[in-house]
Amino acid sequence: MTAAVTGVFCAAATPLNADLSPNLAAFTAHCQRLLEDGCTGVALLGTTGEANSFSLTERRAILEAAIGGGVDPARLLPGTGVAAIPETIELTRHALSLGVTRVVMLPPFYYKGVSDEGLFAAYARIIEGVGDNRLRVVLYHIPQVAGIAISHDLIARLIAAFPGIVVGIKDSAGKFDNMTAMVERFPGFSVLAGADPLLLPLMQAGGAGCITATSNLVGAELATVYRGANDPAQAEAVAAAQARIVAHRDLSNSYVQLPAIKAMVAFRTGDPGWLRLRPPLMALSADEQSALRDKLLAIGATVRDFPQ
Amino acid sequence: MTAAVTGVFCAAATPLNADLSPNLAAFTAHCQRLLEDGCTGVALLGTTGEANSFSLTERRAILEAAIGGGVDPARLLPGTGVAAIPETIELTRHALSLGVTRVVMLPPFYYKGVSDEGLFAAYARIIEGVGDNRLRVVLYHIPQVAGIAISHDLIARLIAAFPGIVVGIKDSAGKFDNMTAMVERFPGFSVLAGADPLLLPLMQAGGAGCITATSNLVGAELATVYRGANDPAQAEAVAAAQARIVAHRDLSNSYVQLPAIKAMVAFRTGDPGWLRLRPPLMALSADEQSALRDKLLAIGATVRDFPQ
Repeated sequence: MTAAVTGVFCAAATPLNADLSPNLAAFTAHCQRLLEDGCTGVALLGTTGEANSFSLTERRAILEAAIGGGVDPARLLPGTGVAAIPETIELTRHALSLGVTRVVMLPPFYYKGVSDEGLFAAYARIIEGVGDNRLRVVLYHIPQVAGIAISHDLIARLIAAFPGIVVGIKDSAGKFDNMTAMVERFPGFSVLAGADPLLLPLMQAGGAGCITATSNLVGAELATVYRGANDPAQAEAVAAAQARIVAHRDLSNSYVQLPAIKAMVAFRTGDPGWLRLRPPLMALSADEQSALRDKLLAIGATVRDFPQ
Repeated sequence: MTAAVTGVFCAAATPLNADLSPNLAAFTAHCQRLLEDGCTGVALLGTTGEANSFSLTERRAILEAAIGGGVDPARLLPGTGVAAIPETIELTRHALSLGVTRVVMLPPFYYKGVSDEGLFAAYARIIEGVGDNRLRVVLYHIPQVAGIAISHDLIARLIAAFPGIVVGIKDSAGKFDNMTAMVERFPGFSVLAGADPLLLPLMQAGGAGCITATSNLVGAELATVYRGANDPAQAEAVAAAQARIVAHRDLSNSYVQLPAIKAMVAFRTGDPGWLRLRPPLMALSADEQSALRDKLLAIGATVRDFPQ
């Protein structure tokens, strides 16, 4: 069985206009930039993309804008999982209607302490409600944010019930042992690292790739790691790329991560609109932005000035 | 300053049809039953009401059905807080368009570890976005489910910025000290207990009432406690009511609470449709239902047989 989702996917951040509506043109340009960097695809509308801070209408508009702007639907991996099953079905059907067959799907995340049986029932109702055999679902394990974990037994049950449809998992919990255990237990199932520095060891352990935030900055380096992780001839290039990945990741994680990622994209593009976030997330303070800019220069990143 | 929200509000459960759509007729009948029990009002579309398992369309339909069925909008306290600010605004405006001015509002609950500044900004954008001075907001503190706490400093800032609009809080964290501290710090602010047994001590400490799940069963007893908590002449009736409240609450909490509450309403009404829940929540097992039925009889509850 060949893995259905392989490569480096960027958990794309979403630029906002002054009224905090999504800046669709800047977002589409960012998707194109990420693909030019070497990302395999764009995992838009995830946690880094502030998806759950947008209305369903805004989420549809963001996906439509990317495709309307020329991004190949086969390279998009939108998040479609929300708290209410009917709306997850609606967003997933909408993606399919645009030719996007692969989605990243959070479990329903309002109620906590729910059973695997309940989560299985939820995913089953969603997949049956979507009712489209083209669908490919990447489960989304991010218990520190969603408050819900995806257990291995749940995965086993979903793979058995929906073979060829439930095809992978994004593991954002940051525990490498969990990723390798899934690689071993579920052959052909795409285990994707949610943390950039783990792409290298995960590829060496038989993983499928990554969906990460730092790829908003270092997609080229992640592509180098992805291609060369198991090729001794590329060890030097891989080590250099990994060092840049780790430096960017450490920098973003020395602040609140999501505002830091957006600020880093602002400095990368010279577009201060990227500094904005939807509450309850808040932009870095001016002092933090200034310090971050200096640190980006110190790790060798290209920093563009904002327009005066 | 007179508290804007006082009394016993039922966190109404929502009956489902076989396809798990909301049973609007049964819900409306339940609202009327709760008011006949003696509840001051119905806090529909909360955590007990499975609100975040329903689409926006379904949420609007549930509220419209209750009002269309003759329930006075002044007695309704719907939950309108969702993860995305534009949708919270939309649901709140919808309630106002129906003459419902008082709502219970969760903070945006997807991102965790957010700052008070971010939560203030979120509530401020919502209130300003709704833009209707009739609005009365009851904040919703349920950190064990939402993953977000409402701090006293946040409350102070919201009351100062939106006097007469941010009027109360439902505290479902179950810590009595937190409730009394808010009563003391915020005169005229409605502190509402989210746990039934705490209504009695909270009323004695100057609280405003409750929004609770067990009131789906024992609204009459809660009304007795509410009226008599500070009247020594009613001490005996209050003690008897409190004992029944505690017995029902202990019983529901000996199972997963929400399925147990729905099963108790099923036995109260003789309508097995109440047993259904939306995944990821699951109905009690047949064995659990049977045991619960016996225990309801043992605590003196009226139990109706299901139709054969």
